[in-house]
Amino acid sequence: MANPSILILAGDGIGPEVMAEVKKIIGWFGDKRGIAFDVTEDLVGGSAYDVHGTPLTDETMAKAQAADAVLLGAVGGPKYDVLDFSVKPERGLLRLRKEMDLFSNLRPAQCFDALADFSSLKKEVVAGLDIMIVRELTSGVYFGEPRGIFPDNEGGRVGVNTQRYTTDEIRRVARSAFELARRRGNKVCSMEKANVMESGILWREEVQWVHDNEYPDVELSHMYADAGAMQLVRWPKQFDVIVTDNLFGDLLSDCAAMLTGSLGMLPSASLGAPTESGRPKALYEPVHGSAPDIAGQGKANPIACILSFAMALRYSFDLGEEASRVERAVEAVLADGARTADLMGPEGGVPVSTAGMGDLIVQAL
Amino acid sequence: MANPSILILAGDGIGPEVMAEVKKIIGWFGDKRGIAFDVTEDLVGGSAYDVHGTPLTDETMAKAQAADAVLLGAVGGPKYDVLDFSVKPERGLLRLRKEMDLFSNLRPAQCFDALADFSSLKKEVVAGLDIMIVRELTSGVYFGEPRGIFPDNEGGRVGVNTQRYTTDEIRRVARSAFELARRRGNKVCSMEKANVMESGILWREEVQWVHDNEYPDVELSHMYADAGAMQLVRWPKQFDVIVTDNLFGDLLSDCAAMLTGSLGMLPSASLGAPTESGRPKALYEPVHGSAPDIAGQGKANPIACILSFAMALRYSFDLGEEASRVERAVEAVLADGARTADLMGPEGGVPVSTAGMGDLIVQAL
Ligand SMILES: CC(C)[C@H](C(=O)O)[C@@H](O)C(=O)O
Ligand SMILES: CC(C)[C@H](C(=O)O)[C@@H](O)C(=O)O
Repeated sequence: MANPSILILAGDGIGPEVMAEVKKIIGWFGDKRGIAFDVTEDLVGGSAYDVHGTPLTDETMAKAQAADAVLLGAVGGPKYDVLDFSVKPERGLLRLRKEMDLFSNLRPAQCFDALADFSSLKKEVVAGLDIMIVRELTSGVYFGEPRGIFPDNEGGRVGVNTQRYTTDEIRRVARSAFELARRRGNKVCSMEKANVMESGILWREEVQWVHDNEYPDVELSHMYADAGAMQLVRWPKQFDVIVTDNLFGDLLSDCAAMLTGSLGMLPSASLGAPTESGRPKALYEPVHGSAPDIAGQGKANPIACILSFAMALRYSFDLGEEASRVERAVEAVLADGARTADLMGPEGGVPVSTAGMGDLIVQAL
Repeated sequence: MANPSILILAGDGIGPEVMAEVKKIIGWFGDKRGIAFDVTEDLVGGSAYDVHGTPLTDETMAKAQAADAVLLGAVGGPKYDVLDFSVKPERGLLRLRKEMDLFSNLRPAQCFDALADFSSLKKEVVAGLDIMIVRELTSGVYFGEPRGIFPDNEGGRVGVNTQRYTTDEIRRVARSAFELARRRGNKVCSMEKANVMESGILWREEVQWVHDNEYPDVELSHMYADAGAMQLVRWPKQFDVIVTDNLFGDLLSDCAAMLTGSLGMLPSASLGAPTESGRPKALYEPVHGSAPDIAGQGKANPIACILSFAMALRYSFDLGEEASRVERAVEAVLADGARTADLMGPEGGVPVSTAGMGDLIVQAL
C-alpha cells in the first residue's frame, strides 16, 4: 500500500521557515518509527501569486483535493496589500477551505504549563486552560452572496456582504462539536447573536435540535457572542468546547489564543466530511499569521506548525499515540527552558532560533 | 428658558435599581448646584411589553425624540426569550438607536485605579488603561436587508442577514472618532475584516479618506478585527481611540470592557448629529446588561449608570466640569473601599448595597 500523502503549502512570510522544522519531524517519523509519508510541496498565497499571478492555481487545488492531508504555513503580507481583492493571498486559503469543504475548524486554546506566566492574564486564570473552539469555516459572511462594492443612491458607494447559514451547514458543524465534547469535558457552548440576527436564531435552534435528537448526553448552553468574548476574558476555564460561526469564530478563537500567551504555539485543524478512505479531507495550519516583520531572521516559533502536524497525526492518520508523543516532546523542550524570541518573557529562558527549536524537539522525540 | 429635559427609560432587570441611584445624583444637581432637569420616565423593553405588548410604544419613541437626552437602564431577561423576534426587549433599544439615528456609540474602557487588581489581566497590563471605542450603531448587519429565516432548497431553512455600509455611514462615524482622538491621544485605530469582506474594504478606504482629507493631523492605523481582539488582550494600552462597525464593535467593546475588570463600572453614550438646539440626539446607558439573576436584591452596581449620566452632562449639556465632578466622586468612593457585590475581590473592601453606593457618591459630591 502506498504511503499516506501530505501536501505542504508553506506559503508566505515565516511559513517556509516554520515548515522546514515540520519536515524534520516528518523525517524523524520515517527514519525512526517506520511511519513514512509521501510529501509533495507547492505554492500558496503571495508566493503563488508572484509566480503564477494567482494565489492558488487549479493544479495546486487538485493536488490538495487528492492529498490525504494538507499542511499550510501562513499566507499574506504588506507587499500584497495593493493587489485586487480577487487575487489577494487570503483568497488562496479561502479557496482551499471552500472547495475542500473543510467545514469544521478545530482551534484548541491551551495554556502550556511552562508558559503560564507568559500570558497577559493572571496565572490562576489561564494555568491548565484547555478549551476547543470549533469554528464553522465554509459558509457565513465569508462566502455569502450578494457581496461587493456598488454605487449607492447618494453618489457614494455601498459595501455589502451576506451572512447566510442553512440547516445542514449548522447541523454538521454542531455534530463535530458534540463529537469532540464527548471525548473531552462533555460540554458545548454555542455562540451567536440570536438577539439581533435571524441567522443567529436559526443557528441556536439547529444546534439545539442536534443536541436534543442526537447528543442529549452532552451538556449544551448558548451564549451571545459579545458575552462570550467577555467570558473568555473573565474566566475562560468555564468552557470546554465552543461552537460558533465563521466570523465570530475568527474573532473569538484569536481572543482565546491570546489568552494563553502562546500564539506562536497554537495549531489548528480544518476538517471536512470523511472520504472513501475513511479519512476526512483535512488542512492543518498554525493559528498565527505570516509575520512578515520577522520573516527570514530565524526568530519564528515553529511549535504551532509542529503541533498542527501532530493534529494531522491524530485526525487524519489515526495516530493519536504518535501525536501525543510530539506534544510531549514540545512540552519537555519548553520545560527545559528553550525559548524562541516570542516566548522570551521576564523570567528569561534559553534563547533558541527557529531551527534550534526544531532540532531540540526532534531530539526530545 | 425651560430646563433641559431628560427621559428616563429604566427598563428591565436591575435597570430600575441602578436608575434610582442616578435620580439621586440628578436631584443633587438641582438642589445643590442649581442645575435642574425636567425628568420624565417611561417604559422600554420587557417592562413595556408586559404593559403594552410592544417593547417601545410610538408615544415613548416620540418622547425620546423630543428629549434633550435619554437615560436607559437595561433591557432583556429570560422571561422574554420565548417572545417573537419582533417584540423582544432588544427591539425597543434597537428602534431607539435607529430612529434617533444615534450612529456614534462611545464606549470608554477605563481601568479605575482602585480596581486594577480586580481584572483577570495582570495589573501592569491594565493599570491606567483608558481607551475609547467608537462603535457604529445604526447600520451594518444589525439593520441590513434582506434578513430573515426562509425555506432552503433542501427542505431545510436558511438564516440570512446583510452587512451593508455606505460611504456616508462610514464617514460620519469616522469623523466622530477623529474628533474624539484630537481631544485625547490623537490616535485612531480602525478595525474591520478587509481581507475577507468587501464591506471591510469600503470601511478602510472611507476611514482613510476622512483622515487624509479632514484629519491628517491624527495618527491613523488599520487592523483586522481578529488581530484587534488579540491585541486588546495582549497589550490594550497600545490603543487610544478604536473605530469599528456595529457588530465588531459589539464584541470588541465587551472584550475591552472586561479587560478593566469593571463591567459594572462602564458607561456609554450613543450620539446622533447635532439638532437645532446644538445638542446631538443622545442616549446614555451602562455597558452592562439587565442581570436578571441579581435583580431586586440590592446587589447591582449603579456606577456604570451614574457615569452614563456624567457622559450626558459632558456630551449633551456641555457641563464637562460637572461630569468630572461626578467621576471624581466615584473614584473617591472606590478609593475609600466601598464595594458592591460585583467588586468584591480577594482584597476585600467595605460591602455596600446599590442604594448604599448611590448615597456614598452623593455624599462625595
Ligand atoms: C487569513 C484570513 C483569511 C483568516 C480568516 O479570516 O479566516 C485568518 O484570520 C484565520 O483566522 O485563519
Ligand atoms: C442588547 C443588545 C441588542 C445590544 C447589542 O447587541 O448591541 C448589547 O449587546 C449592546 O452591546 O448594547
